[in-house]
Amino acid sequence: MLITDKLINKINETGNPTVVGLDPRLNYIPEYITSKYYEKYGFTPKAAAKSMLKFNKKIIDAVFDIVPAVKPQIAMYERYGIDGIKAYIKTCEYAAEKGLIVIGDIKRSDISSTAEAYSDAHLGECTVGDKSYSTFKHDYVTVNAYLGSDGVTPFLKDCQKYGKGIFVLAKTSNPNSGEIQDLLTDGKPVYEKMGELIEKWGAEFIGENGYSSVGAVVGATHPQQAKTLRQAMPHTFFLVPGYGAQGGRAEDLAVCFDKNGIGAIVNSSRGIIAAHMKDEYKDCFGSEKDFALAARQACIDMKNDLRRCI
Amino acid sequence: MLITDKLINKINETGNPTVVGLDPRLNYIPEYITSKYYEKYGFTPKAAAKSMLKFNKKIIDAVFDIVPAVKPQIAMYERYGIDGIKAYIKTCEYAAEKGLIVIGDIKRSDISSTAEAYSDAHLGECTVGDKSYSTFKHDYVTVNAYLGSDGVTPFLKDCQKYGKGIFVLAKTSNPNSGEIQDLLTDGKPVYEKMGELIEKWGAEFIGENGYSSVGAVVGATHPQQAKTLRQAMPHTFFLVPGYGAQGGRAEDLAVCFDKNGIGAIVNSSRGIIAAHMKDEYKDCFGSEKDFALAARQACIDMKNDLRRCI
Repeated sequence: MLITDKLINKINETGNPTVVGLDPRLNYIPEYITSKYYEKYGFTPKAAAKSMLKFNKKIIDAVFDIVPAVKPQIAMYERYGIDGIKAYIKTCEYAAEKGLIVIGDIKRSDISSTAEAYSDAHLGECTVGDKSYSTFKHDYVTVNAYLGSDGVTPFLKDCQKYGKGIFVLAKTSNPNSGEIQDLLTDGKPVYEKMGELIEKWGAEFIGENGYSSVGAVVGATHPQQAKTLRQAMPHTFFLVPGYGAQGGRAEDLAVCFDKNGIGAIVNSSRGIIAAHMKDEYKDCFGSEKDFALAARQACIDMKNDLRRCI
Repeated sequence: MLITDKLINKINETGNPTVVGLDPRLNYIPEYITSKYYEKYGFTPKAAAKSMLKFNKKIIDAVFDIVPAVKPQIAMYERYGIDGIKAYIKTCEYAAEKGLIVIGDIKRSDISSTAEAYSDAHLGECTVGDKSYSTFKHDYVTVNAYLGSDGVTPFLKDCQKYGKGIFVLAKTSNPNSGEIQDLLTDGKPVYEKMGELIEKWGAEFIGENGYSSVGAVVGATHPQQAKTLRQAMPHTFFLVPGYGAQGGRAEDLAVCFDKNGIGAIVNSSRGIIAAHMKDEYKDCFGSEKDFALAARQACIDMKNDLRRCI
């Protein structure tokens, strides 16, 4: 089964098109976790990384049965060097063990043999002598295709070979995304041209539900653009960032879904993993040990909010 | 002193605007190196990574006095997971110890707090409690700015704070780079619009030589485009990939330099680090232990080839 069919099945099972962004910052992590590791390892990247992993595991334990997927953002782990990247890898492994789809938000970009190396690392395998190894346990990764097809083809080969998928940046959620992405070319903005390429790259990977393993990143904060892209990209599944903290509302992003209510998965990071710090959850989840329960409640609330509109 | 002034000084000292691309593949590495590590660690990512590091150190030892800079490509190391990334970090450290400018070819892209995390990792520091750590010893990193200013500003802050630099992708060297980059918008291609943004981002970082710490990646394989960009971006130093193996010739890329013969640094990876596998060097450097001497000779030959034209 193609990966996007698996993802759609998981969304249908849980009734929840929410992906939990695992982008932990140290200030999100309750002191009872960090203090233990600071005591053991001092104020070190190792202590930070161990705290992040413990925090992630508790979040995963609390949400794995009610969401289809997680999206760890590798930058947050690279920040802490080797220890951080180890925590990233273990987070992905743990989420996969729990049956979650893992979307590695790595936004890598390069060409030809270099893109191949990234794809070996993040979707496929590296080979040493007669042995092969898979390092990062991703089902999907995000890719930045400013460099064109040369930067995407190596990933497509691994999508084919290993049953994986990618999400290519089309229209991102940030305020200045238009500086390049909205430039008009032949009456169309660059993000639509990117959308056409993405549909083309995905043509060989269309599954039972009509959606391809080659998806697109389309921000929740630009509803008009998202609507155009949904129409122009009928086979492309959308990964939608920007809900909640960045200002995207369920009403705005409903256009990312098709008439059957599928076609997209919506990310929330801070809104879920830092729910325990928000006033609306503080009252019910007052003890710092309740942070994962607050995350679970935030997933349920997000599901209800989304389903209101799609 | 701003980093691009340091780079220009190093180029002037060596008379050589060549950057050595440290993108090792296992098949470039002589068997006397790999076999030792395979014996010790088996066919494992660890053995691959140790081989790469040993290979890189020998290349660096052979060239550090005749080139200004190296550009390790992180994808080649990420391929081998944690062990690979350790070898990458140690390669950067070793090159820095030898006085080389280190350009981390990471092409990272993200926004706001996520871009901040990448910048903490690759240009700045991460903070844990009251302690700070710097992991990747880069002087510059490459950045993909398809996401707009939101993806660049965090790096600029660290350029300011830590005296570092970035090279932003403008027009890349690969055959399909035009799919997005050449799209015409108001009569100008996207790469020129990107060029305008890069000049703007770099305006606060212009050094004694008239060039900014914010540079651009401009491929050697597109001489007409490079010429236009050189004129449109008078304060932007160019990192020029695509020389040699990718087809870019010294004649073509001469347009990347200004009338004083500065303004660019030209990368060669395979052409230098795998010189020992090329017929023209095999005769003089026949023993597999001579691979680093072949790399040194390739740097000298490249210098002469470039200086013929600039």
